[in-house]
Amino acid sequence: MSYELFVEVTRNSTVESRHFGAAVVCDHKGNVLESWGDVKRLIFPRSALKPLLAIDLVNSGASDHYALSDAEITMACASHQGEPMHQEVVAAWLSRLGLNEDFLACGPDLPDDIESARKLLVSGQQGCRVYHNCSGKHAGFLTTALHLDMPLEDFHLVDHPLQKLSLDGLCELAGTDLRQYPMGIDGCGFPAITMPLVNLAQAVARFAKPTDLSDARMQSIYRLQQAIIREPLYAAGHGTVVSELNQVTKGAVLAKTGAEGVLTAALPEQGLGIAIKISDGGSRARSTALLAILDHLGALSGEEKNHLQAHITPKIENSRGLVVGEIHPARSWLPG
Amino acid sequence: MSYELFVEVTRNSTVESRHFGAAVVCDHKGNVLESWGDVKRLIFPRSALKPLLAIDLVNSGASDHYALSDAEITMACASHQGEPMHQEVVAAWLSRLGLNEDFLACGPDLPDDIESARKLLVSGQQGCRVYHNCSGKHAGFLTTALHLDMPLEDFHLVDHPLQKLSLDGLCELAGTDLRQYPMGIDGCGFPAITMPLVNLAQAVARFAKPTDLSDARMQSIYRLQQAIIREPLYAAGHGTVVSELNQVTKGAVLAKTGAEGVLTAALPEQGLGIAIKISDGGSRARSTALLAILDHLGALSGEEKNHLQAHITPKIENSRGLVVGEIHPARSWLPG
Repeated sequence: MSYELFVEVTRNSTVESRHFGAAVVCDHKGNVLESWGDVKRLIFPRSALKPLLAIDLVNSGASDHYALSDAEITMACASHQGEPMHQEVVAAWLSRLGLNEDFLACGPDLPDDIESARKLLVSGQQGCRVYHNCSGKHAGFLTTALHLDMPLEDFHLVDHPLQKLSLDGLCELAGTDLRQYPMGIDGCGFPAITMPLVNLAQAVARFAKPTDLSDARMQSIYRLQQAIIREPLYAAGHGTVVSELNQVTKGAVLAKTGAEGVLTAALPEQGLGIAIKISDGGSRARSTALLAILDHLGALSGEEKNHLQAHITPKIENSRGLVVGEIHPARSWLPG
Repeated sequence: MSYELFVEVTRNSTVESRHFGAAVVCDHKGNVLESWGDVKRLIFPRSALKPLLAIDLVNSGASDHYALSDAEITMACASHQGEPMHQEVVAAWLSRLGLNEDFLACGPDLPDDIESARKLLVSGQQGCRVYHNCSGKHAGFLTTALHLDMPLEDFHLVDHPLQKLSLDGLCELAGTDLRQYPMGIDGCGFPAITMPLVNLAQAVARFAKPTDLSDARMQSIYRLQQAIIREPLYAAGHGTVVSELNQVTKGAVLAKTGAEGVLTAALPEQGLGIAIKISDGGSRARSTALLAILDHLGALSGEEKNHLQAHITPKIENSRGLVVGEIHPARSWLPG
């Protein structure tokens, strides 16, 4: 079976919808510890690559040269929700570089955070590039390009020297030549790389425990981890599974979302990487699936699970504010 | 296999996400002509029931007594997008009944139509009950309750006499005692009935060709069909597959959406009913699946398919306005 039944959505205890997916747990040596579904199938990791693509920001010396804050480094790794705190950091960062939002290659967008989007519309504002969930990644790439004297123009295109450098780094982490696989274009204009799901988990495991990489790249990854652990709310935003997992586990689980149902988690202490693809590309099932795997691995304490309950079995409310159902892991999937 | 692969989502020709589902085509005698996946599995039809639940509005004499317009009758059957045209009809209808939006049992909502929602927010307004996609159904039930001297209070609850009457009618259409199955609560507070997918298709086929029902119920269904065919834009809204299929086929295909990936189609001329459930509950795959089945049945001309291309293989644009992928029927699924 290419996919397994991961998550059920119930209405008054009767299953209404079902989410299928594939998932894999790897260690930093590339060993597959557990897998579900066809994990050799090509997937688009999308934004799950952001932390891995940010390594050059540190490794090139750019982050030190521009004295980037932990919040800025974290936002280079983030799919942020466009809350005011995120908007402010990206705008100030661009301004310090002598740039503005026109240099970002992503298109204009409203914040993913509904309340922030609502407030902007009510105040008569429109979507803009800074609000795009990728604006921190773009600011990070611009910072590196400036520092390395690379052209800022077309920095999002696959032939730009910084994209080539990034892809080389990704190949090392994924343990395979990614140029052999098809490529698309991402929501923000960046190359949308593909790889087997298992290679994504291996790359995330090497990010979790980079001890087999060069010393410089290892130290760069530790710097990224440190920033993300210190500034969890800049890694996604209030109420998100990414920020809350980081906060509740005190940095023991560094998750990252990717569009179309992708979710990864790096566990630095254990040197593990987890990669999940929900087949339908929707976003509501992936947190429940990840938390079920983390629980299965014994990676969460009872207290941590209590704090994360809203992500483990999210409740579904109707327009009258009644709880009418919930999202939970399928019973058949994981033992105990 | 409980579900079959119906729809693929590609990025630059590589499949990124996959939607699985079940579907069935029945005739008005209840015969199953074709099916895919497990069609005996219980599903929640959700709003796909609205046209079937509107029969009592006509059959009770309420629609004649209150001289309902075609637009109003259509909105009793509709999941509308909350465009200004929809807001106006429901508000005027309630006012003519001597009621206001406080009588609607659905909670407040913003319009499903993004532009309408945006304009409301920009103009400083909030969500309200009239904008809820079910407001026409609620107005229809209130009209029938008034006409039958039933209490208006709690008309959305399963024990209300009008809900009992509706459920009796549904049982006849579905050809089974629906009280044997579990029930939940819908987004708007109504009972959320369950039934096997095949019974939903049978019910829709009997709505398409009601010649085996009592003369009064048959005529009531013809009146509903006539209204919906005359006022397709009140059946959902601009740009929707429901309204556009109705318009392009001149009423030969009357589709109806249900939350969580449900889509039905009544084909009055052929006496057919189609019911589709996309397992993951998302809404982006169901139109493509329905149009593939209609094409497979030879129910669409080449010209009609041209007009419906945006629903057959929707294009995916990124934030820069580039077409980066598409949604299409899986090749393996339907022959030629």
